[in-house]
Amino acid sequence: MGLPVVGMVGGGQLSRMTHQAAIALGLSVRVLADGDRDSAALVAQGVELGEHTSLDALRSFAASCEVVTFDHEHVPNDLVQALEADGTTVLPGSTALRHAQDKLVMRERLAAMGVPVPAFTPVATEADVEGFGRHVGWPLVLKAATGGYDGKGVWVVRDLAEAGEVLRSGVRLLAEEHVPLLRELSALVARSPEGQGAAWPVVETVQSDGVCVEVVAPAPDLSEERSLEAQDLALRLADELGVVGVMAVELFETASGLLVNELAMRPHNSGHWTIEGSRTSQFEQHLRAVLDWPMGATERTAPWVVMANVLGGSGEPDLDRRLHMLFGRDPGLKVHLYGKEVRPGRKIGHVTALGDDLEQTRQRAREGAAHLADGRWVH
Amino acid sequence: MGLPVVGMVGGGQLSRMTHQAAIALGLSVRVLADGDRDSAALVAQGVELGEHTSLDALRSFAASCEVVTFDHEHVPNDLVQALEADGTTVLPGSTALRHAQDKLVMRERLAAMGVPVPAFTPVATEADVEGFGRHVGWPLVLKAATGGYDGKGVWVVRDLAEAGEVLRSGVRLLAEEHVPLLRELSALVARSPEGQGAAWPVVETVQSDGVCVEVVAPAPDLSEERSLEAQDLALRLADELGVVGVMAVELFETASGLLVNELAMRPHNSGHWTIEGSRTSQFEQHLRAVLDWPMGATERTAPWVVMANVLGGSGEPDLDRRLHMLFGRDPGLKVHLYGKEVRPGRKIGHVTALGDDLEQTRQRAREGAAHLADGRWVH
Repeated sequence: MGLPVVGMVGGGQLSRMTHQAAIALGLSVRVLADGDRDSAALVAQGVELGEHTSLDALRSFAASCEVVTFDHEHVPNDLVQALEADGTTVLPGSTALRHAQDKLVMRERLAAMGVPVPAFTPVATEADVEGFGRHVGWPLVLKAATGGYDGKGVWVVRDLAEAGEVLRSGVRLLAEEHVPLLRELSALVARSPEGQGAAWPVVETVQSDGVCVEVVAPAPDLSEERSLEAQDLALRLADELGVVGVMAVELFETASGLLVNELAMRPHNSGHWTIEGSRTSQFEQHLRAVLDWPMGATERTAPWVVMANVLGGSGEPDLDRRLHMLFGRDPGLKVHLYGKEVRPGRKIGHVTALGDDLEQTRQRAREGAAHLADGRWVH
Repeated sequence: MGLPVVGMVGGGQLSRMTHQAAIALGLSVRVLADGDRDSAALVAQGVELGEHTSLDALRSFAASCEVVTFDHEHVPNDLVQALEADGTTVLPGSTALRHAQDKLVMRERLAAMGVPVPAFTPVATEADVEGFGRHVGWPLVLKAATGGYDGKGVWVVRDLAEAGEVLRSGVRLLAEEHVPLLRELSALVARSPEGQGAAWPVVETVQSDGVCVEVVAPAPDLSEERSLEAQDLALRLADELGVVGVMAVELFETASGLLVNELAMRPHNSGHWTIEGSRTSQFEQHLRAVLDWPMGATERTAPWVVMANVLGGSGEPDLDRRLHMLFGRDPGLKVHLYGKEVRPGRKIGHVTALGDDLEQTRQRAREGAAHLADGRWVH
């Protein structure tokens, strides 16, 4: 059929759901996975096993693909550069990707662009932290500059003793002010190589212990003005950083306005609701972007769309039975399971509810996710 | 995860799209395909190569599955019975399936149930046809009792000479009256082993040379009464024949009412619109049914949904370029390509348009399908 081969580095659920979207487009995404039990490796035809930190593995994988993209940020930037030097089309490219891989690089670039971010500084010693603490007050936040995800690599420290423990771990750190936030938002956009941008409605993300548990689209009670501000900011960032593909801009909403928290340059948990809730899902859009196809329509398919993550409980669940119960109770709920081994707190799936009433829709999503997670109903 | 393994015999586009739906449910459908270039074999992880007419191949395949289902009707019924005798769960079962495999068996059963069908009779000789022709008039229709699809195995004959040619082909035939139909409809339903039924809105199907080219959901200007009659009929048939899974009841609408034309006991071309157009797609529903999970909601997601098939033209299309053009022109159109080699008239994909206005929605679907088929725009 002559359609280009897209390779995705990483075999997690983002790769799994990208493969699912690729099937409709007549594509078969190739996946570089760590193991044959990886979420995407269970369902995709073109799976290659190999380490994403090995240049040999990456080169061998890239040789069979017209374009290489990612399901995570953990491919070292110098390896991405090496692929680019080989002539491989890698999207997003290394220059853009650095801003999703290194929080300090990102903070410095955004601050230089005049984008509102929390006060921050690189820290290596207790004296550094103490000085910063005098400036922004305590508690403050320490963050690993690289490698963190789902709340890992982020520490809220109340005093210098607590900070000292983190400093002794030896990771490269930045310190940030502890922002008094009203809530967290996410502005999801996509950008194609020729610069076409697309934005989905801004959503509210609800975290628990640093892990996203719920996403509400659109963000309730968000003013039109602030919504447009967030979308404009995300599109501007995608453009100035040269992003190709989907980018999530995680935002803090505070009494005085929006601050950028994190960037992710790939399909993102805050966009899973788009599979049923938007005319074009983030997974299809990511593929369209890296293939340089025009962006798809991002209009919502229902007034309210709520996604709730299914987090692993203790023990192996009888999912067959739980699905039976759940589908009997709520025939309209959409379920996504990732085929992953269950570990406590691990994201093993998500559910999406669509409806006309926010509270009912939210309740359906919460009940569904709780039932799949531990076999109970929440009320 | 302990979820059952579903095996689908046949590697065509129905299997491909069932696999796509299975991914969300945490499943990985196993596929018995003729070759590794089959539509589903290109994208599914668990592909086994083997002939669907070989009991050895079917047995070996079934051994790795908890339930076996089909993407076509071409597995000989005695082999399905042999699998059942082995203790394999086959859904739909051989008893139900016969009515989708043998048009004469189906006609006789439906007539005995009092279901309206065209006048018909088995024919083997010119005398048989002549006698039937005196009864119903000419032209009349000859049909191969088994093995036909997409207009193949159906002949409209004007006189005994034309009938003679068909008779000499040696296939088992039935003769039917040539029904003066207003249009064709399809009533798509699903049924679970415990007897739960689900019905989608009745659709209008538009054929060209015996091949479905367009499906409009819901069927325009269909009275509520006739719509309910068609849905009730399809649910009753599913129940009385003991169908498990999706069943399409193809109907003729005539001045004097509805007549049943064909039955298909699997996901069906007349239900492709459900992927985006219904809260639960026919592919997800088929999986839910064969897994004995409760049926999903079948409400439409837009006032009008139009599906148009993409039929292969002459020569190898530059699909990359055509998709680029198409997505630029219509960002909301949903495209499904099957990865199949292009042959003139072969179904290589479909497009789905959703909208508030019937004529606009239909025009978008037609334009999109025509452009993918031959690179032109229709107006």
